[in-house]
Amino acid sequence: MVSRGGDADAGHERGRARVVVRPATDADWDEIYAIFTQVVDEGRTYAYPEGLSSCDARALWMEPDPGRTVVAVAGGRVGGTAKMGPNRPGRGSHVATASFMVHPAQRRLGIATELASHVIEWSRASGYRAIQFNAVVETNTGAVELWTKLGFAILATVPEAFDDAVNGYVGLHVMYRSLR
Amino acid sequence: MVSRGGDADAGHERGRARVVVRPATDADWDEIYAIFTQVVDEGRTYAYPEGLSSCDARALWMEPDPGRTVVAVAGGRVGGTAKMGPNRPGRGSHVATASFMVHPAQRRLGIATELASHVIEWSRASGYRAIQFNAVVETNTGAVELWTKLGFAILATVPEAFDDAVNGYVGLHVMYRSLR
Repeated sequence: MVSRGGDADAGHERGRARVVVRPATDADWDEIYAIFTQVVDEGRTYAYPEGLSSCDARALWMEPDPGRTVVAVAGGRVGGTAKMGPNRPGRGSHVATASFMVHPAQRRLGIATELASHVIEWSRASGYRAIQFNAVVETNTGAVELWTKLGFAILATVPEAFDDAVNGYVGLHVMYRSLR
Repeated sequence: MVSRGGDADAGHERGRARVVVRPATDADWDEIYAIFTQVVDEGRTYAYPEGLSSCDARALWMEPDPGRTVVAVAGGRVGGTAKMGPNRPGRGSHVATASFMVHPAQRRLGIATELASHVIEWSRASGYRAIQFNAVVETNTGAVELWTKLGFAILATVPEAFDDAVNGYVGLHVMYRSLR
């Protein structure tokens, strides 16, 4: 077997071989909630309330139509999840947005890349004109690098808009990718 | 009486004399909903769903604690309304946001200026570190000029993110003002 190059590519190859992205079902929720809780409690990436009940977290994460929520299954377990849909209703509903979470124990396996690629394909197929991320924590360099690699640009950084558990106040990037 | 200068100042002076900003009550809702419906139906400024029922609009506009909703009363009638509160929950809750609507028949009376000044004062008094507007329609030049005058900067313009009823796809400004 021939090496395909750097670590990122290798991870992506591993991810492609092992990761299946599919719509989330009721049966997935307990695994999703475990990821949601761990990621929010880390305090590094999401401005969600901490300590949300399973019910409240579910209302927040399981996106109703026309949005959707998916899981990335790796090795028979839910390794990550993403939700996607219109960034705004009404006259802003032609721009999509999405949120992603990967299980802390299953990072660097290409799960985020698979989820992100899925979101871009779904958004384009659903007729959205662009994808906007409203709040990417600037110190979450893995995410920033992944989105940049996938064609997203940083439009602005809102200064000190996130209270990071480690670094205190850090910026939140607004990131954007046209689909046209 | 001595003229105080340009139209904007004159409007502001008139506004200050006539406009009272106070918390919204249940009794105000019908007047607020009339403004909400007209402003959303114009299709020039807000990406809210059109045709919202009174109940759904109320859930959207009447901000629960720790946010609040106020009305600007002019000549015994509700001439405008604003809601304000944290832009994000959890680790983003130190940045405020706000939304404003002025009755189409009562524009250019200084109502927006009074509401905006109220929001800045309330946000500072409540301990927020900054105010962020997520989606100011770039063709809404009255609003953009007012926020700029009150110290807000345009951090970015998300291209074609709003489907304006007159001009089609136009940009949405992310605007920001530090309170420190």
